[in-house]
Parts: sequence; C-alpha cells; structure tokens
Amino acid sequence: MHLPELRHPGFAVRRATLDDVADIVALLIDDPLGARRERTDDLAPYWQAFQAIDADPDQVLVVAERAGEVVATLQLTIIPGLSHRGALRGQLEGVRVAAAERGAGLGTALIRWAIDESRRRGCRLVQLTSHRSRGDAQRFYGRLGFEYTHAGFTLSL
Amino acid sequence: MHLPELRHPGFAVRRATLDDVADIVALLIDDPLGARRERTDDLAPYWQAFQAIDADPDQVLVVAERAGEVVATLQLTIIPGLSHRGALRGQLEGVRVAAAERGAGLGTALIRWAIDESRRRGCRLVQLTSHRSRGDAQRFYGRLGFEYTHAGFTLSL
Repeated sequence: MHLPELRHPGFAVRRATLDDVADIVALLIDDPLGARRERTDDLAPYWQAFQAIDADPDQVLVVAERAGEVVATLQLTIIPGLSHRGALRGQLEGVRVAAAERGAGLGTALIRWAIDESRRRGCRLVQLTSHRSRGDAQRFYGRLGFEYTHAGFTLSL
Repeated sequence: MHLPELRHPGFAVRRATLDDVADIVALLIDDPLGARRERTDDLAPYWQAFQAIDADPDQVLVVAERAGEVVATLQLTIIPGLSHRGALRGQLEGVRVAAAERGAGLGTALIRWAIDESRRRGCRLVQLTSHRSRGDAQRFYGRLGFEYTHAGFTLSL
C-alpha cells in the first residue's frame, strides 16, 4: 500500500521488514526504560512479534532511514471503536529516534507523517501514551498539538 | 470462541452483537464526557463501527447482562508490538457500567474478566487510559492493581 511521504529532506519512511527488526530493537534498547526491559541476545521473540504485526492490516510499523540507515521507528495501530460516534483511532507506540538524530526535526516529521497516515485511513483521533518519566517527550507532543487529556494505567501480567 | 466466566453472581458476560449497539451507545451517552460527544438520533455510524470491530479477531467487545438486560460494556483490543521483548498487550477502551449498577462490584468483576481474557490470549501487559477528569475511575483502577505510569495524549483530526 502507498504510504504518505516523510516531510523531512534527506530522510525517507517505509514499512519495516523482518530484516529491520534488529535495528528497531537497537533503537528500543538505547533508552533508559528500554535498556531495562529489552535484550538483544535472542531476537526470536521480536521476530515472532514482527510476524504478527506484519500480518495485521491495522498495524503499520515503519522505519525512517537516512542514506539507507535505520534512524527512527514507530508503530501505528488503527483501532475501531463505538465511542465518538464510531470513530476510528490511530494509536502510536514505540516511537524512537536514534540519539545522534535528535533535535533536528526528524521526530516531528515522523509524528506528522503518522498523523497524515491516520487521517488518510479515516481516523478522527490520534492517541498515544508516554511514560510519566519522559518529560521531554511530553513537551514534544504538546508542541505538536497533542493534549495531555488522559491518565495512562498499566498492569503487568 | 469460548470466553472466561464473569465472577459476579447473577451477571453474565458475552460478546456483543449488532442488536446490542443501541444499549451500548446508551451506556456511552450516560456519562459527562459521552453526553457531549455521542448522539442517538442516528445509530448508523455506530452500526458501521460495530461491523469493523466484530470482523477483527483482535477486538473483543463485550456486554455484561443481568436478567437479560445490558448493564455494562468494555472493548478489549489485543495489540502485538516489539517492545517488552515482543509482548502482546491487552488494551481496554469504552469501559462503562450503568449508573444503577455502580458500587456493587460489577466494574471490578468486568475488569478482572478482561485481565483473565488478556492473559488467556497471551498478553503480558494490560493498558488503558482514563480521562484526567475521572478521578473516581483512577482510584478504581489503582485498587485493581493498575499503576498510573503514563501520560495519555490525544489529538482530534
């Protein structure tokens, strides 16, 4: 399926493939929270998860590249629901930009890309959660027009 | 597919059908936030959204009944992801209990049911967001073992 363009010169966005999984995990682990919960000695669970994501038309896992190198990722999930008069929602998870690429607008372009793709798929709402320890991320989403409307709860099983 | 039992005597949980949509919308609208954003004069958008939910094996929209009357609802979405070593997540949305049934443990039983169903489907995490104006709901989820770990952001399109 055709995806919108990334509006950030020199960078491109494309759907992730199985060959990108190691690079995506490297982005996930290069992070204070990710470092504690991810591991790279066995990628099999990630490959298996990738297959489930890739088989689901409501999941859009993408990478952003510069000169063929993976430098950012995010996952967009399209969720149908009855609330808001039966609105489709676009939900963002796993948003990561390589440390060396931060501060230059790539993250902004990637989130705007995800908003474009959500709109193109008919979503009337984009939602995401950000760990409460990530103050910088929260200011970033605020600048992009998101509002801190909800309290996000998690329960580990 | 077989669903877990609701552990609340006199009540049962089952998958929602198209015939339940009007009752579910009535639960959504009987709420300070829902009253502003839902409308019952035209159910067509809700029926259409129901079809999308019902066709998706990763969506579980249920109602709880007492004596054949719909008194509560929730939607569970199963989301694959790479984070947390490729963990599946169970996400709750649209949790509503009829005003007349609140305070007697039905909501607790329904959330526990959703946790059971998430575990049965292999999820390692259950997540939800609650509007920041819903202080009672947030204390309720805290008592059920959920932690307020994330800031929830939304953007209307």
